Amino acid sequence: MLEQLKKEVYEANIELVKKGLVIYTWGNVSGISREDNLIVIKPSGVNYEDMTYEDMTVIDFNGNIVEGKYKPSSDTPTHIELYKKYDNIGGIVHTHSVWAVAFAQAGIPITAFGTTHADYFYGDIPCTRDLTEDEVKCNYEFNTGRVIIECIGDNNPLAIPGIVVKNHGPFAWGTDASNSVYNAVVMEKVAEMAYKTITLNKDVKRVPQFLLDKHYYRKHGANAYYGQK
Amino acid sequence: MLEQLKKEVYEANIELVKKGLVIYTWGNVSGISREDNLIVIKPSGVNYEDMTYEDMTVIDFNGNIVEGKYKPSSDTPTHIELYKKYDNIGGIVHTHSVWAVAFAQAGIPITAFGTTHADYFYGDIPCTRDLTEDEVKCNYEFNTGRVIIECIGDNNPLAIPGIVVKNHGPFAWGTDASNSVYNAVVMEKVAEMAYKTITLNKDVKRVPQFLLDKHYYRKHGANAYYGQK
Amino acid sequence: MLEQLKKEVYEANIELVKKGLVIYTWGNVSGISREDNLIVIKPSGVNYEDMTYEDMTVIDFNGNIVEGKYKPSSDTPTHIELYKKYDNIGGIVHTHSVWAVAFAQAGIPITAFGTTHADYFYGDIPCTRDLTEDEVKCNYEFNTGRVIIECIGDNNPLAIPGIVVKNHGPFAWGTDASNSVYNAVVMEKVAEMAYKTITLNKDVKRVPQFLLDKHYYRKHGANAYYGQK
Amino acid sequence: MLEQLKKEVYEANIELVKKGLVIYTWGNVSGISREDNLIVIKPSGVNYEDMTYEDMTVIDFNGNIVEGKYKPSSDTPTHIELYKKYDNIGGIVHTHSVWAVAFAQAGIPITAFGTTHADYFYGDIPCTRDLTEDEVKCNYEFNTGRVIIECIGDNNPLAIPGIVVKNHGPFAWGTDASNSVYNAVVMEKVAEMAYKTITLNKDVKRVPQFLLDKHYYRKHGANAYYGQK
Repeated sequence: MLEQLKKEVYEANIELVKKGLVIYTWGNVSGISREDNLIVIKPSGVNYEDMTYEDMTVIDFNGNIVEGKYKPSSDTPTHIELYKKYDNIGGIVHTHSVWAVAFAQAGIPITAFGTTHADYFYGDIPCTRDLTEDEVKCNYEFNTGRVIIECIGDNNPLAIPGIVVKNHGPFAWGTDASNSVYNAVVMEKVAEMAYKTITLNKDVKRVPQFLLDKHYYRKHGANAYYGQK
Repeated sequence: MLEQLKKEVYEANIELVKKGLVIYTWGNVSGISREDNLIVIKPSGVNYEDMTYEDMTVIDFNGNIVEGKYKPSSDTPTHIELYKKYDNIGGIVHTHSVWAVAFAQAGIPITAFGTTHADYFYGDIPCTRDLTEDEVKCNYEFNTGRVIIECIGDNNPLAIPGIVVKNHGPFAWGTDASNSVYNAVVMEKVAEMAYKTITLNKDVKRVPQFLLDKHYYRKHGANAYYGQK
Repeated sequence: MLEQLKKEVYEANIELVKKGLVIYTWGNVSGISREDNLIVIKPSGVNYEDMTYEDMTVIDFNGNIVEGKYKPSSDTPTHIELYKKYDNIGGIVHTHSVWAVAFAQAGIPITAFGTTHADYFYGDIPCTRDLTEDEVKCNYEFNTGRVIIECIGDNNPLAIPGIVVKNHGPFAWGTDASNSVYNAVVMEKVAEMAYKTITLNKDVKRVPQFLLDKHYYRKHGANAYYGQK
Repeated sequence: MLEQLKKEVYEANIELVKKGLVIYTWGNVSGISREDNLIVIKPSGVNYEDMTYEDMTVIDFNGNIVEGKYKPSSDTPTHIELYKKYDNIGGIVHTHSVWAVAFAQAGIPITAFGTTHADYFYGDIPCTRDLTEDEVKCNYEFNTGRVIIECIGDNNPLAIPGIVVKNHGPFAWGTDASNSVYNAVVMEKVAEMAYKTITLNKDVKRVPQFLLDKHYYRKHGANAYYGQK
């Protein structure tokens, strides 16, 4: 079932390796079939090089395995919460990419300092609050999804398609699995740029709002003029 | 038309990928035929791996497409302004290479700290002023060209063949498309060196003028003695 | 003799090169046969590219060569001390990987700042004390083992399977040679993350204990639920 | 003539590219035949990929071309001075490798912070004084050799086989061309380690002399026990 989606999710997972965002079994990408309310996700703890698209696990919104010989990623409850809350998200990715993790561990947002950021993220990429001891001890991965949702609220999640979870690392999302990885790659790159900007000039200020607007809307929305029709 | 120039511009764009200055659709290189007053430039938002030299877009000085099935880079008006103002420029490149972007976002010039810089750039690589809200909202890419020209003024643009645009990123140029990319690569390298120099020693001083002169004129001008004949 | 172990140790050494942890002849990996009380280790000063698995040296607990045409790694006495003290260690590795060396030279532990660290290391990765002049002058490599043991004490060495030796560099260990290299790779990655975290936010605090617990025990021990059964 | 030496020098130059120490035409390696008092050096401004071993230039101690169709490296007079002063040097290399350049531009020595450094450099890698205006304007490359010699004095140059020239970059040397490149690679690596050490802990202290002694003499001299036989 969902062979096409499994292939897409598999390819998106492999793309993480190619782009240098993950090593070993770190990271996971999922994609969703909104029609079927079924999620396809990387199996937990399986090496990328050993994996085939048929190893992807299919789960429902309760986390039950619908198809697949492997347990899904341990972060599955986080993915589910995000898919349930935001129906315009088609793919989600979690990694431990180094630059974004640095911001997560430092507990600070990835401030929008320039147009590279503004081309893809309409504002600062937030850092979640700390999870409480209770939230960590009980239903940790579910609660990780909840603190992400606390940050996004009822805003359009695709306007700023990523976040860093405090002391943990980046989550990104997109219109589908491939697009979520694309956003994770860009997020890692803008995190690197932000780090180098801050360490060069600790008094640096956020990009002016009108420049953020310009670049974001040059690429997104009705008046976008970047790219081919 | 302009098959040779299209090939050169195509190759220069691909060189950006090989040298690690761009990912995805970021960046663009153009070249000009001064004889024809026609510019060849990368199409907007097209992936490097999908592109052939025949996909390059040919435009005139008003930005009209003279040949090509794709819209030109959204930064085209910036390129046009530079070509119109400085007739010894044969190629222009824009990227979001990380080290140069850090300086652009930090809003500081890439100071000439050593001979690597002096070999190619006869002085600090400037950072433009902020564009005003009006300049961003209306004719943004044209105005980006204008603030670059404000910095260069009537100096020879080939003496310091690059700049960082505030909150945005580097532009570089050269005698042709390939040479502009060469200069962009060197600029990225000297930005990296400058970053590491500043973070090692925040009181570091600019290279002495006589050493800058020595290295620059060892490679450029009538008395150059670097290289063959 | 011990052909299988020699192959494993050889492969683990080569993995150091593939993962970018060593250049030239730097670094060494060993593995142990607990049944035979024999250790297989990289020969001293031999280039990785010239080495075959048959070049691995077999030694006993007194450092005597039992088989092999080459002298064992000069760090052999350090390996022996660790194997003698901790019988659940099956492999040991020493490298001069850059990020971990930075902590060793700076003389500070690699603090647990996040979940990447917590997934593999149950607490800060310690930095040993300075060796005294006497300890360096006489039986240096043996004493290096002793100061590592001073840090670990009677704790389970697999709970925090790595350390940085002051002014020197990282040692890591694991259930076998391959696992020790895996831990060295993760240690280098978390050192990189810690460096970037500290330089971003010098007031950063350690990860909360309950989050460290959660991530560590999600992957280790009786209640682990990461990975496949 | 000197076909074997030309091959060695050519290979050493190519090794600079493979190890990532140079781009474009940057850098140069030479080797010397003490028997013939002839130096073989990279031609000036020639790309590494276009070069064959037969393109190496043979010069005498006065800088006269004895064989070769190309002008020698513009840094030739620096090489000659070093060869003339120190007769145990068999190869010399100059690069603009980034980490070493950072120290050159910051105007600070690469302090010996640990055993990686001590394994190859018996003490801090010095940074030369500034050249005066006169020294730069007249016989610049010769004077570059002179300020290097000022630093080394009558010490054995192989004890600390490298230096950073203020505002310029690293020179390294060795028993032959290949060994000089080896030392340049190690110097770049220890510069990287030193940078990360200093930025991690600005109060960091030099490695104790007895540990420097131990590691240096473990690899060098009559009592060395690292490596085979």
